[in-house]
Amino acid sequence: MEEGAEVRNKQVIFKDYIKGALKESDMYVKTDTTRKLELPEGAEGVLVKNLYLSCDPYMRLLMTKRDTGGVFSSYTPGSPLTGYGVAKVLESGNANFKKGDLVWGPKIPWEEYSIINNTESLFKIEYTDMPLSYYTGILAMPGMTAYAGFFEVCSPKKGEYIFVSAAAGAVGQLVGQFAKWMGCYVVGSAGSEEKYMTHLLITSLGCALEQVKLLKNKLGFDEAFNYKEEQDLDAALKRESTLTLTWRLIVSDRCFPEGIDIYFENVGGKMLDAVLLNMRTHGRIAVCGMVSQYNLDEPEGVRNLMHIVSRRVRIQGFAVFDYYHLYSKYLEFVLPLIREGKITYVEDIVEGLENGPAALVGLLSGRNIGKQVVVVARD
Amino acid sequence: MEEGAEVRNKQVIFKDYIKGALKESDMYVKTDTTRKLELPEGAEGVLVKNLYLSCDPYMRLLMTKRDTGGVFSSYTPGSPLTGYGVAKVLESGNANFKKGDLVWGPKIPWEEYSIINNTESLFKIEYTDMPLSYYTGILAMPGMTAYAGFFEVCSPKKGEYIFVSAAAGAVGQLVGQFAKWMGCYVVGSAGSEEKYMTHLLITSLGCALEQVKLLKNKLGFDEAFNYKEEQDLDAALKRESTLTLTWRLIVSDRCFPEGIDIYFENVGGKMLDAVLLNMRTHGRIAVCGMVSQYNLDEPEGVRNLMHIVSRRVRIQGFAVFDYYHLYSKYLEFVLPLIREGKITYVEDIVEGLENGPAALVGLLSGRNIGKQVVVVARD
Repeated sequence: MEEGAEVRNKQVIFKDYIKGALKESDMYVKTDTTRKLELPEGAEGVLVKNLYLSCDPYMRLLMTKRDTGGVFSSYTPGSPLTGYGVAKVLESGNANFKKGDLVWGPKIPWEEYSIINNTESLFKIEYTDMPLSYYTGILAMPGMTAYAGFFEVCSPKKGEYIFVSAAAGAVGQLVGQFAKWMGCYVVGSAGSEEKYMTHLLITSLGCALEQVKLLKNKLGFDEAFNYKEEQDLDAALKRESTLTLTWRLIVSDRCFPEGIDIYFENVGGKMLDAVLLNMRTHGRIAVCGMVSQYNLDEPEGVRNLMHIVSRRVRIQGFAVFDYYHLYSKYLEFVLPLIREGKITYVEDIVEGLENGPAALVGLLSGRNIGKQVVVVARD
Repeated sequence: MEEGAEVRNKQVIFKDYIKGALKESDMYVKTDTTRKLELPEGAEGVLVKNLYLSCDPYMRLLMTKRDTGGVFSSYTPGSPLTGYGVAKVLESGNANFKKGDLVWGPKIPWEEYSIINNTESLFKIEYTDMPLSYYTGILAMPGMTAYAGFFEVCSPKKGEYIFVSAAAGAVGQLVGQFAKWMGCYVVGSAGSEEKYMTHLLITSLGCALEQVKLLKNKLGFDEAFNYKEEQDLDAALKRESTLTLTWRLIVSDRCFPEGIDIYFENVGGKMLDAVLLNMRTHGRIAVCGMVSQYNLDEPEGVRNLMHIVSRRVRIQGFAVFDYYHLYSKYLEFVLPLIREGKITYVEDIVEGLENGPAALVGLLSGRNIGKQVVVVARD
């Protein structure tokens, strides 16, 4: 592409603030925007070509005009979505970046080409022997979230009982494997949302089955269950060992008959309430997110908080950006595990920016199998 | 009293497991029990004369047959209540105690004379220059709860914004004063429960007024409010400064327009929900108890937990018995403060075991002004 050329700049535009579940029609693909491929005179940012975009649950929060506590600000109707992503520098007005650099960062617009002025939020990609898409997941924000959330917030000890919800997602799959690496017992839950099962029954059941199989057979979780199949989440967590004589081929289950030491919380609501009934003394709950609540106008009430007194439980909300100072330490930890095949990292990759809206809707309804990524361009 | 004599042993008996609010009629005073004033042959416990009994909110939890997480077991219908208290050793079968020793401990039956077999739970009272009743409060479990809960669990820093609920109680009044001692800004809430206000309108309003006055005028809180007078707890917490042109003489209020760093949680439910909306980044909530929930068959749902993620809030349930190793350190800290008049400690003392049931009911409905104590005998 010639420098200074005017090129098409396809975008995914956020229509307007929403209530309830995100639908594809809440976004649209705009194909008639163009961008001149050069930085304005004196600009201190970078001009980038966007390569990979990350679909993350928190993005739903930015689609409602509400106080999210100032961490991220809500999207602007009529403008492109933004999120984590990987991009290639085409031109730089900043001494820290040069043409050809690969970067990842939190404010990549959902479009083909962007000018990013806030270069302080960008990380330069040093290890290019890894798949670039990993810099939307295991080697970027979700990986750091799993690492900091598990090792720093949960203070895990060998042999402890760990429960991870949304365990087939970008963060959950890593927390489970980090916990196994430490010698813990790990159970994960997964499952598509019920509202989708009425419309997309077969797809959703299929996804949930795939997710549960993934956790047990490929990611090394000791046990996994599809929470949408459980009438009673408390009973599911307490389950010791039963023959499940349905069409499912699972013949025994053992979750937490002795209780949970650590809960890595991604979903909130009813699951948190059931977990509170099963926490062990001095247990810890690291709250990464509460995706089951993001679509609700009024969040569900959590009733079992009293149990945190008698069991002396700690609940800690955390955000990954408090831990980015550990990023190079994390890479030292995780890169050898990836290279030696000791970590399995599963991605759910969708080709083409125009398929981004469907991918994001799928993520928010729990239909992704692994980290949800959208490819804009491969280089 | 002659050794070996058979004496009357008045008792307060727990009738049966209850639902809803405790009523005086759920207990009765039994006057026809006797006890022989000697230890059985070979007994390793102590025979004591009970002096002061402590009324504490957790006692309500023991009146329902439910899983309290194993910290204390439920009361036995037909037997005396038990609780924290101060007693004098009349006879000892244990080398650690001798006749005449004064002790405090968690399992003192509500009766005049007791045999206590589990002497390991007893603390010997070393500083007898203090009022003995203090060993149900500031120098015993509630004092240690305030000390450990505030300094160990909350990690306070000078200048931080502290909110204490049930602030006129045994623990709350001390937390507020410890926080002032540290140079923090402190607001307390107090107030009788609404259900009592219908029956006992004047008494309850009077109590609440007294409590709020106590916090501001005597205990040095920067601000205090009666939460039963607030239509909107969130607004009350955010309040900056208003003239309150009612019959109350308060003319300005300033709670937390800039948010709350530390919440010392004694009540739960709606108050916790309102506080969650007002927590500052990296805020801490030490959960000591949730007295507003103890009378409910099903606890209230708390809806604003999502805020702990965006503000990275820590919620820590704790129990005082994890901190008793700090007891002598605590006495070194608090005894000089008491002796120098730097701590004000307010007690609500009721004379006579037969008035114990009313005192306990009053405490659970928030009508106590200061630490609720029942005097069985003064020596």
